[in-house]
Amino acid sequence: GYGRLDTDRLARTGDPEVIYGAGKTPEQVVELLRRLRQAHPSRAALATRLGPEALAAVRATFPEASISEDAGVVTVGPLPQARGLVCVVSAGTSDARVATEAAVTARAFGAGVRQISDVGVAGIHRLLAVKDELDQADCLVVVAGMEGALPSVVGGLTGVPLVAVPTSVGYGASFGGLAALLAMLNSCAPGVVVTNIDNGFGAGVFAARVARRARRDGGAR
Amino acid sequence: GYGRLDTDRLARTGDPEVIYGAGKTPEQVVELLRRLRQAHPSRAALATRLGPEALAAVRATFPEASISEDAGVVTVGPLPQARGLVCVVSAGTSDARVATEAAVTARAFGAGVRQISDVGVAGIHRLLAVKDELDQADCLVVVAGMEGALPSVVGGLTGVPLVAVPTSVGYGASFGGLAALLAMLNSCAPGVVVTNIDNGFGAGVFAARVARRARRDGGAR
Amino acid sequence: GYGRLDTDRLARTGDPEVIYGAGKTPEQVVELLRRLRQAHPSRAALATRLGPEALAAVRATFPEASISEDAGVVTVGPLPQARGLVCVVSAGTSDARVATEAAVTARAFGAGVRQISDVGVAGIHRLLAVKDELDQADCLVVVAGMEGALPSVVGGLTGVPLVAVPTSVGYGASFGGLAALLAMLNSCAPGVVVTNIDNGFGAGVFAARVARRARRDGGAR
Amino acid sequence: GYGRLDTDRLARTGDPEVIYGAGKTPEQVVELLRRLRQAHPSRAALATRLGPEALAAVRATFPEASISEDAGVVTVGPLPQARGLVCVVSAGTSDARVATEAAVTARAFGAGVRQISDVGVAGIHRLLAVKDELDQADCLVVVAGMEGALPSVVGGLTGVPLVAVPTSVGYGASFGGLAALLAMLNSCAPGVVVTNIDNGFGAGVFAARVARRARRDGGAR
Amino acid sequence: GYGRLDTDRLARTGDPEVIYGAGKTPEQVVELLRRLRQAHPSRAALATRLGPEALAAVRATFPEASISEDAGVVTVGPLPQARGLVCVVSAGTSDARVATEAAVTARAFGAGVRQISDVGVAGIHRLLAVKDELDQADCLVVVAGMEGALPSVVGGLTGVPLVAVPTSVGYGASFGGLAALLAMLNSCAPGVVVTNIDNGFGAGVFAARVARRARRDGGAR
Amino acid sequence: GYGRLDTDRLARTGDPEVIYGAGKTPEQVVELLRRLRQAHPSRAALATRLGPEALAAVRATFPEASISEDAGVVTVGPLPQARGLVCVVSAGTSDARVATEAAVTARAFGAGVRQISDVGVAGIHRLLAVKDELDQADCLVVVAGMEGALPSVVGGLTGVPLVAVPTSVGYGASFGGLAALLAMLNSCAPGVVVTNIDNGFGAGVFAARVARRARRDGGAR
Amino acid sequence: GYGRLDTDRLARTGDPEVIYGAGKTPEQVVELLRRLRQAHPSRAALATRLGPEALAAVRATFPEASISEDAGVVTVGPLPQARGLVCVVSAGTSDARVATEAAVTARAFGAGVRQISDVGVAGIHRLLAVKDELDQADCLVVVAGMEGALPSVVGGLTGVPLVAVPTSVGYGASFGGLAALLAMLNSCAPGVVVTNIDNGFGAGVFAARVARRARRDGGAR
Amino acid sequence: GYGRLDTDRLARTGDPEVIYGAGKTPEQVVELLRRLRQAHPSRAALATRLGPEALAAVRATFPEASISEDAGVVTVGPLPQARGLVCVVSAGTSDARVATEAAVTARAFGAGVRQISDVGVAGIHRLLAVKDELDQADCLVVVAGMEGALPSVVGGLTGVPLVAVPTSVGYGASFGGLAALLAMLNSCAPGVVVTNIDNGFGAGVFAARVARRARRDGGAR
Ligand SMILES: Nc1ncnc2c1ncn2[C@@H]1O[C@H](COP(=O)(O)O)[C@@H](O)[C@H]1O
Ligand SMILES: Nc1ncnc2c1ncn2[C@@H]1O[C@H](COP(=O)(O)O)[C@@H](O)[C@H]1O
Ligand SMILES: Nc1ncnc2c1ncn2[C@@H]1O[C@H](COP(=O)(O)O)[C@@H](O)[C@H]1O
Ligand SMILES: Nc1ncnc2c1ncn2[C@@H]1O[C@H](COP(=O)(O)O)[C@@H](O)[C@H]1O
Ligand SMILES: [Mg+2]
Ligand SMILES: [Mg+2]
Ligand SMILES: [Mg+2]
Ligand SMILES: [Mg+2]
Ligand SMILES: [Mg+2]
Ligand SMILES: [Mg+2]
Ligand SMILES: [Mg+2]
Ligand SMILES: [Mg+2]
Repeated sequence: GYGRLDTDRLARTGDPEVIYGAGKTPEQVVELLRRLRQAHPSRAALATRLGPEALAAVRATFPEASISEDAGVVTVGPLPQARGLVCVVSAGTSDARVATEAAVTARAFGAGVRQISDVGVAGIHRLLAVKDELDQADCLVVVAGMEGALPSVVGGLTGVPLVAVPTSVGYGASFGGLAALLAMLNSCAPGVVVTNIDNGFGAGVFAARVARRARRDGGAR
Repeated sequence: GYGRLDTDRLARTGDPEVIYGAGKTPEQVVELLRRLRQAHPSRAALATRLGPEALAAVRATFPEASISEDAGVVTVGPLPQARGLVCVVSAGTSDARVATEAAVTARAFGAGVRQISDVGVAGIHRLLAVKDELDQADCLVVVAGMEGALPSVVGGLTGVPLVAVPTSVGYGASFGGLAALLAMLNSCAPGVVVTNIDNGFGAGVFAARVARRARRDGGAR
Repeated sequence: GYGRLDTDRLARTGDPEVIYGAGKTPEQVVELLRRLRQAHPSRAALATRLGPEALAAVRATFPEASISEDAGVVTVGPLPQARGLVCVVSAGTSDARVATEAAVTARAFGAGVRQISDVGVAGIHRLLAVKDELDQADCLVVVAGMEGALPSVVGGLTGVPLVAVPTSVGYGASFGGLAALLAMLNSCAPGVVVTNIDNGFGAGVFAARVARRARRDGGAR
Repeated sequence: GYGRLDTDRLARTGDPEVIYGAGKTPEQVVELLRRLRQAHPSRAALATRLGPEALAAVRATFPEASISEDAGVVTVGPLPQARGLVCVVSAGTSDARVATEAAVTARAFGAGVRQISDVGVAGIHRLLAVKDELDQADCLVVVAGMEGALPSVVGGLTGVPLVAVPTSVGYGASFGGLAALLAMLNSCAPGVVVTNIDNGFGAGVFAARVARRARRDGGAR
Repeated sequence: GYGRLDTDRLARTGDPEVIYGAGKTPEQVVELLRRLRQAHPSRAALATRLGPEALAAVRATFPEASISEDAGVVTVGPLPQARGLVCVVSAGTSDARVATEAAVTARAFGAGVRQISDVGVAGIHRLLAVKDELDQADCLVVVAGMEGALPSVVGGLTGVPLVAVPTSVGYGASFGGLAALLAMLNSCAPGVVVTNIDNGFGAGVFAARVARRARRDGGAR
Repeated sequence: GYGRLDTDRLARTGDPEVIYGAGKTPEQVVELLRRLRQAHPSRAALATRLGPEALAAVRATFPEASISEDAGVVTVGPLPQARGLVCVVSAGTSDARVATEAAVTARAFGAGVRQISDVGVAGIHRLLAVKDELDQADCLVVVAGMEGALPSVVGGLTGVPLVAVPTSVGYGASFGGLAALLAMLNSCAPGVVVTNIDNGFGAGVFAARVARRARRDGGAR
Repeated sequence: GYGRLDTDRLARTGDPEVIYGAGKTPEQVVELLRRLRQAHPSRAALATRLGPEALAAVRATFPEASISEDAGVVTVGPLPQARGLVCVVSAGTSDARVATEAAVTARAFGAGVRQISDVGVAGIHRLLAVKDELDQADCLVVVAGMEGALPSVVGGLTGVPLVAVPTSVGYGASFGGLAALLAMLNSCAPGVVVTNIDNGFGAGVFAARVARRARRDGGAR
Repeated sequence: GYGRLDTDRLARTGDPEVIYGAGKTPEQVVELLRRLRQAHPSRAALATRLGPEALAAVRATFPEASISEDAGVVTVGPLPQARGLVCVVSAGTSDARVATEAAVTARAFGAGVRQISDVGVAGIHRLLAVKDELDQADCLVVVAGMEGALPSVVGGLTGVPLVAVPTSVGYGASFGGLAALLAMLNSCAPGVVVTNIDNGFGAGVFAARVARRARRDGGAR
């Protein structure tokens, strides 16, 4: 059999269980989504890491599903009211998949979300142009592969809490995202925290928790 | 010469520059503290990673300094008003040094702080006994060396944003904290984010930023 | 040609040779099972790591075979009388394959077996609920991927000998099970021993040897 | 302050807390031994990883202490009755320190102990000469550095449960014991389990737990 | 285009160029064999790492070819007279492919060859039974995967020059042969030298060079 | 004895031999400098990686020596005429040692040199303020430790050839400069090349060779 | 969607944006080439890492395209006038793909290019025979896999600026090009700089920038 | 106690036991040398890795000892008659220590020895000048640190059996000799075999065994 659902998690942590699609059949994904919908009818169910077949099965079964094709993420059911603002920033076009996983997750976990793409450090002017948008967020998620430099630059521009997500984008001595991961762990910008490689989901959960608790005045100092 | 101070940082990010004592002479530390005090008279200056000589020099020069001997951390000057609550949880007694660095930093960066020690996973009852205290925090900092399992267990007990700090405590296949770092990055509890090995400072900065922005109702869902 | 069987092993170590199916054709697996059955008619033959084709060939040739489809493990012939009790505990649903390999192996090597699944550390209450069952075992096999924290928690709850099995479940900085392996090697619970990544077979052999020698009073202290 | 003692551990797991001396002052070690002696007057207290100063302080304070100088291990108080037999086997002369840590620990945890040294694989005749002694044990602890081959050879000679302990003895591509650790994890002898590098203590705890529960007939098959 | 042949190598080093088939098309392999045959008509041409298609093409083009199907190795043309004796020893059945590559290479490079299989360290009696054959060789090639312990045991039994070849056989913490490689580099038997993982070819070349220069009296001491 | 000087190198490559002071006694350093001065009287001799004793010995023997105390670098004799311009940019104050090694080397190898310090990525405005100076150089040397992000940002601002030098500044998961090295190798800015960790010398040699060949119009496109 | 083009890059750095084909569909590649051609009509557009389908689509759409089939590189449009000379040297035949990527890139970035293949260090006479050609270049790109020794030998023969490119050619302990990368970073020839594994593109960009700025007299010393 | 001597080894393998001085006191070294001299009066005793104190103690006790101060190697007693010729080639001056360990060991194990130093690959002419001496040897030992390229170049010049010894000379990404080790394992010259990092002893043993068996005509082909 496949995974038992931890339907008690909502009570314990304030957030419902989520379906991790990697290694599950389309039938299993559909069945688990059905059970999640039943357990928490008023709250959208989230599934990540779905391949094309699973996405098709979800689309056929839940016409109301909201689907991010490229990122393999779906939500089924009414999204919670958005509280606070998560801003997801990404470097290269190949990082979009992970950034979208973070954005959809943060939204499904109850935060408002804004997404800013293609602001890699090799063209720093693009980043400086959006500094105001960065400052308005309650939590930032910064996604980058290769050398993973983006969080350090963003972290020097703003004091908003910043979660860095290394991606496996790269080749050779990127070692599947290790280069970006190590870079982010060693960021010289104070207060950068890091997730596992490609873990947009984890960053989204964390950022939503921070954002939806945030006072609108940003904790004015 | 030694480091120029980034006295503009307070304006840019809301938090002042900090002195990283590793590799600096006692004279340099004292001089930098003096300059930080001048630049921001109303705000305590923080210095981390001080050895015994530097601590002695600070004590002699700034009788009003608040010193954490074992952790090598000092603050000089009035602490900011505490907003929100950071709870620093640690596993073994050897992790205390890093936990204290996180706690003092979070306090100096404007959050209230509570510290809970010696609640390692091999005696899980000790952790269950403090669940209520965990739930009251606005941000958790969870410090552990060796197998780094504590954040996963804490992250399953509560939905409070959780920053995990791996320490270099251990030997052999701990590889200087690598084992704990990898464990924390792979936590099965959703929403765990991670800092560099032994980086209590970074965790403290991040947690303070989250906590001092937090609404007192915890973002009731 | 394929592997010569070490039919003398039963005499030397008390346990017969086993077939490791990885890289063998269905015909080779069937032929080796036939020879093992001949060499030790009164003792079930065990084969592990069989793919779908090999499983089908075994089913067709030995209708009496007992097959664990998902885990790719089969036994053919009468199982030895069960002596002592091995309890196999696993964390996530993806770890089930390795847990079952351990359970079937332990049973084929002469121990009684109980299997407890889905008791990951992120939901610690599920584990506390089965503490009594843990205490009744003569040897525990604890299977976990990702951060590999489960053995530390179990090892703090009970003094029963505990074999930890890291699995390759995870992604990114799990590095194919390395994160879980390192975590288990650094467990702060005293007396945790470890096998290779995904090596349910080795854990099953070891645990059966411990369990079938155990006095029923558990070596009361 | 230094570590709080987990004096409840004896009730929970059947074995008392132990003092890990690395990073503790002689005064701390002596004080902790005193408290362990008070908490469990009928049971010897164990301390490991003591340097020369700590050993001297223990000798001065507890004249009745039993001290293994080279291994940095001491017991203070009456040893428990020995049940079952642990046999500690080691390869090179430099591995003796770790082997003795395992032997003293197993004895303090209630097992009888026999120690066999200098039976490295490069002189296999020495090992074959002691096969009978190996078969008589209830649990084997096999200690080796460098290429870590000894457990595979021993594991092919006997069916007694075998715990392998890699040591950091070696240079260059031994990478502080990593070579031996990997070798032991990949042992082709079925049923070899492994501890952290240099972790004689963990192996001793585990082996004692197995041995003191063992039936004298060795679980005759 | 594909590789230019180094037809001058025979003059420079005493051994002709060889075809490495990995990444070459069947047509390229056949063409290169043809050119090698022309350049050195009196000396067999050797090709290694050939897949099924390349083997079929060779068989069709050179009916006189001598083909080792499983190892993907062929020789075309008259083998040189055998001088001296190389003995290739291997551990598990999966190591046979590499052992055969070494054996065919050594023969093609002018040495006599004897091959001994399935003498892994977990059944040490099988190895002791062939000690005399080991002593008769002028050079040994010892092939093993997993924990790579075989060269240490063989190296303790005899003073014949010994080349160890780690293989990628294994899983999990074998890390593609790294465990065996490190073990062999750290062998406690003096005078063990090592090749790259799976490099039967390199071991065969080296061993042939040693063997064909050897005096028949073995350099009696 | 210590190293023979390769006095022919000047003829072969256009640059004279240099003294690498690590592991050499003060006497050896002084003697080698004397011999270099004799071999090439019209060209300054360079020595790097000198400790305090060697520096003192050089100062005493060669009063005309030019000494960079902190970086442990000296030149003795007339510097070559400066052709072209190398600009050495560094991130943190601790990177200064390596940056100075690069700057002194580039000057001794015949290029003009400008040095810009303390322009780390966490305060990007400092870097933007010097863009014009960057564009004026014929070759850039960019030195950074920790996350090694500076070369990517600089490489996005200018098309001047850029050599990146990772330093060992950092702790924990910086792994002695590995994090910075990997980051630089994976730079998303096209045309960044990299040296070994802390290898200011190699970067200085390379940059001088590029700069002194450069046309003053910068190869206008 | 796929990557936005950085059409401003030409103005900022003197070199236009380039298409990185890995992970892009043939349609995306064709469309991006079309847009690059429009943005910079007088300058050839470059695309790298194209698979067979993308190459076919480019050939069909742009009959004027210049295509390097094996290397997966194309240019569309008029090449810039060649200034200076880049010489691309490679070791084995399998390194040709990377060498050609470097050569085509250098030409498209405005340098003249000469390519020398099959001059591996195991046949050093082939390299000595081309020393004059090496000396005539303004920048060298030296490509090698396996042990990556070629740059050290070339770097000892000439003072021309030298960029080393490690390739992933090899097996076993080459670890996907890591062995060659580390070797090149540790080159004992002064002034060797290194790119990422297989990064012919980056080396070509860098070398072109150096070459097209070079004075024809080579910066005579 | 310290190591028991394996005085039976001479009979088993043709070579006597040797003293490995690392971690032994001067008294232990002297005592072990005494016992080796008694066990094999007609054969010199060898001790390696001796520090200054042990060397002084040996000099005082055995005035007839032959001592290589820098390499920390001594022989006491009559050297065996030299048979065959080992040629030890090394790259940089810092590799001399390891080269001398190899040379003294080979001589003590019964081979004639010639030593050639300072022929690094960055000055290839020095190596070409000694090609005839290389061809005269029966076995080559090639010692190099940093990028470890020397064995590949030597292996392309001659067909003499070649043992490569990586040294820990280097810094940064040399990772304690790992770079040189990997390079040598991946040598493109056929027939290069490798020892552990800094293991001149092992290379000397192996080479002596090869050389003393070699026919004087070098196995003419
Ligand atoms: N314990 C610490 N760990 C990591 N970074 C620190 C620590 N303490 C201070 N820092 C950072 O180090 C910077 C000062 O570095 P420096 O200019 O080298 O003195 C501060 O701005 C902080 O961002
Ligand atoms: N799943 C498994 N993992 C590791 N080793 C196994 C497994 N199954 C069987 N083996 C071992 O593999 C041996 C057979 O290997 P082979 O001779 O290659 O078929 C058996 O004797 C067992 O010791
Ligand atoms: N073969 C290559 N290797 C590395 N980077 C490349 C390569 N080809 C192009 N690029 C870079 O990739 C960028 C385009 O990436 P993207 O926006 O993902 O298409 C270009 O601006 C180049 O800097
Ligand atoms: N420099 C060396 N490196 C590696 N092994 C050595 C060295 N010198 C001696 N040995 C080996 O160490 C053994 C003695 O080790 P031990 O019994 O610990 O003194 C000898 O028999 C040799 O095989
Ligand atoms: Mg679950
Ligand atoms: Mg600073
Ligand atoms: Mg077998
Ligand atoms: Mg404790
Ligand atoms: Mg070739
Ligand atoms: Mg030199
Ligand atoms: Mg782009
Ligand atoms: Mg010994």
